[in-house]
Amino acid sequence: MAGKRIPKKERQRLLKEKLKEDPFLTDEELTEMFNVSIQTIRLDRLELGIPELRQRIKKVAEKNYTKVRSIGGTEIVGELVDLSLGKNGISILETNTDMAFEKTNIIRGHHIFSQAETLAMAVIDADVALTGVANIKYKKPVYAGQKLIAKAQVTRVRSNKYFVHVFTYVGQEQVFRGKFILVSVDQEL
Amino acid sequence: MAGKRIPKKERQRLLKEKLKEDPFLTDEELTEMFNVSIQTIRLDRLELGIPELRQRIKKVAEKNYTKVRSIGGTEIVGELVDLSLGKNGISILETNTDMAFEKTNIIRGHHIFSQAETLAMAVIDADVALTGVANIKYKKPVYAGQKLIAKAQVTRVRSNKYFVHVFTYVGQEQVFRGKFILVSVDQEL
Repeated sequence: MAGKRIPKKERQRLLKEKLKEDPFLTDEELTEMFNVSIQTIRLDRLELGIPELRQRIKKVAEKNYTKVRSIGGTEIVGELVDLSLGKNGISILETNTDMAFEKTNIIRGHHIFSQAETLAMAVIDADVALTGVANIKYKKPVYAGQKLIAKAQVTRVRSNKYFVHVFTYVGQEQVFRGKFILVSVDQEL
Repeated sequence: MAGKRIPKKERQRLLKEKLKEDPFLTDEELTEMFNVSIQTIRLDRLELGIPELRQRIKKVAEKNYTKVRSIGGTEIVGELVDLSLGKNGISILETNTDMAFEKTNIIRGHHIFSQAETLAMAVIDADVALTGVANIKYKKPVYAGQKLIAKAQVTRVRSNKYFVHVFTYVGQEQVFRGKFILVSVDQEL
């Protein structure tokens, strides 16, 4: 894309459009998209009145927390950016070095698991539930700084059992999948 | 056991013996064992120069952290009270209300998972490893304040794959089990 610079006005129009399609694009991703510096992207956002990624995520997430039944909003690991109770949901977790192994900068597995498990709890349409069983697979190492997008789908409900699949991505690449069976706690586990 | 009080001297002798067999007995458990008040147990410990549980756990754990290869000591969730590298290990996690669901006081699943997964990593005899696959089952709800004892066993090693089983108990009761396959990271996941 070298040399293929778009005039500022056109770039800002496209930037708005791109962020409307996917509000969770990072400044780095926009930088690559438009072949400009990160400072240019930040100035564009400032001029257009578009807040930084963290704020955009929080804003979208806020309206979802009130829908959740089985888990407190603050108990969800990551930000809940989409939720259709009893059906599906999406959460985003921005990783950092605190979550990584010192030696390798690879994110520790249980952080990825926690995001998936709490998302699975968030999507089910029940008051109180616990995880009964989980079958999980880590597919690719995740590095500190990468943004984890977890997508959960309720696949089946049978009396007090909820079957939830969670797929977690970095960009387009799947890094984790978990199959959970959640159980209402008023029943025996 | 009501009325079956043992003379102080005999009780202190037994208490020392019991704590030698199992240094991780809580004051509450000792209270029930000897049918005395918790103050009595605390005084007994003071007179015998036996530190409180947390200190006892830390002291036993210290010498194990230096043995661990694949994970930093501070990255282990819980205290590593026993370790035979490449074979087995035990960790203890004292739970509290911060780890529990507000609604039910039940410990959130991912804390139990994190203890098990980091213990599984600690026991294997490899420099750097990641969890590839895990199959887990939560068997009983765990309540804030309960002490989780996780026991890991390396069941098989095949080239760069390590099979580890973890069983977690509250007292004598199994509350969780996890089967992990860990993979050395210099190889493909």
